[in-house]
Amino acid sequence: MKQELLYEGKAKRIYKTDQENVLWVAYKDSATAFNGQKKAEIVGKAQLNNKISSFLFSMLHKKGVETHFIQSLSDSEQLVKKVDIIPLEVVVRNMTAGSLAKRIGVKEGIPFSNPIVELYYKNDDLGDPLIIDEHAIFLEAATADEIQFLKEQALSINEVLKQFFKDKGIQLVDFKLEFGKTASGDIILADEISPDTCRFWDIETNEKLDKDVFRRDLGTLTEAYEKILERIGG
Amino acid sequence: MKQELLYEGKAKRIYKTDQENVLWVAYKDSATAFNGQKKAEIVGKAQLNNKISSFLFSMLHKKGVETHFIQSLSDSEQLVKKVDIIPLEVVVRNMTAGSLAKRIGVKEGIPFSNPIVELYYKNDDLGDPLIIDEHAIFLEAATADEIQFLKEQALSINEVLKQFFKDKGIQLVDFKLEFGKTASGDIILADEISPDTCRFWDIETNEKLDKDVFRRDLGTLTEAYEKILERIGG
Ligand SMILES: Nc1ncnc2c1ncn2[C@@H]1O[C@H](COP(=O)(O)OP(=O)(O)O)[C@@H](O)[C@H]1O
Ligand SMILES: Nc1ncnc2c1ncn2[C@@H]1O[C@H](COP(=O)(O)OP(=O)(O)O)[C@@H](O)[C@H]1O
Ligand SMILES: [Mg+2]
Ligand SMILES: [Mg+2]
Repeated sequence: MKQELLYEGKAKRIYKTDQENVLWVAYKDSATAFNGQKKAEIVGKAQLNNKISSFLFSMLHKKGVETHFIQSLSDSEQLVKKVDIIPLEVVVRNMTAGSLAKRIGVKEGIPFSNPIVELYYKNDDLGDPLIIDEHAIFLEAATADEIQFLKEQALSINEVLKQFFKDKGIQLVDFKLEFGKTASGDIILADEISPDTCRFWDIETNEKLDKDVFRRDLGTLTEAYEKILERIGG
Repeated sequence: MKQELLYEGKAKRIYKTDQENVLWVAYKDSATAFNGQKKAEIVGKAQLNNKISSFLFSMLHKKGVETHFIQSLSDSEQLVKKVDIIPLEVVVRNMTAGSLAKRIGVKEGIPFSNPIVELYYKNDDLGDPLIIDEHAIFLEAATADEIQFLKEQALSINEVLKQFFKDKGIQLVDFKLEFGKTASGDIILADEISPDTCRFWDIETNEKLDKDVFRRDLGTLTEAYEKILERIGG
């Protein structure tokens, strides 16, 4: 049973339910980029991201990854376990792209010999800055042990997703994860995994099938996201 | 014997000498901040920084730290060992201040329970961005072992400097180091340690005795730097 709105983010509305530890997530048709500076309403995006994220979280669950996902409710809604979100964006990169390529002055698409995990401080007012582990610990975003756990989890999830997408002809360039703590103190994967939060490149054509289509005006976002949904068979 | 100019930076001119592995450093009266956006000529700064840096490098040498410093030549010039500079700014922080306080949204002057070492990619075009170890390795700025060595060295230097300045009534808030490789492959401390590269706060009054005087228009830079030189007895 959907109850009052708990909070509204850029991509989702989160509602309470009659169960203390369960939340109702309604995906939105909004697209935002550059920390909210670029915005658009894109009809169909809510459904696409809800379907893709539900599919991927179910898949990860089957591979033994603990996640917040409980079940899909409708094309654009799902039930999740309530967590206290750890205010760190955990980014895994298999190749250079996006803000990192800019930061260090290299071109996009250079593979790393080992995937890299980065931490960004989840704080819109500060523009989600890159931080080092010691900053995260100082900020009490997580303890040293928790950070090690987040990184290990992120790398395991990367292995699963990378292989899964490779089999579908898609290169998983990078992605962002959020984790949270359940009432019982476990750290589980939360938020979403979708073309909003990943970079997907077609292995054959290098076509971008993710939010860069919107960020860089490369075409119709829903067409790109549809292709991802079709390829994964969700 | 001073020979041709090898390169000119924002704070120093570096000349060749008749010895292959020795360079002649002439400090400049220029002050720059915010990656060169704010600039001024400040008569007397060259002498102050050359004297302070020479003094501190000699002191570190006595404490067993290997440095590029050979000898002072004049009030504003010194001889150093030539190194290939490792393109990493190694920053040690004992308290929050400056760009870090801004980045993570906290006030200045909060002590860390343990000093923090950060790496910035030394690249003016990119604005010397904060990077993580894995970025530095990918950029081939240094190997993983070299980074570990740099961090250990930086922390040892911090212990020496922190205690030294504390005895002079000055809080060492943070500082930036540069290291380089000698012809024989050793990594030694290079560049300078001066009020341009450190944050010094008077322990009693919290008066800033470093480049923040220039960055933030807090008074006369040379007066602040003179106080540092007097206090250290250089
Ligand atoms: N299982 C969960 N429990 C509590 N909060 C969650 C959960 N999953 C995601 N959230 C949070 O829901 C909020 C809304 O999501 P979103 O619209 O993507 O926000 P944002 O604008 O921060 O990207 C975010 O703060 C996200 O961290
Ligand atoms: N021992 C050394 N051998 C070679 N180069 C050095 C040595 N010490 C410092 N340098 C380099 O000298 C250059 C000039 O110094 P500076 O004016 O401070 O430059 P910047 O504008 O980069 O701050 C810098 O690139 C610095 O890294
Ligand atoms: Mg989000
Ligand atoms: Mg310099």
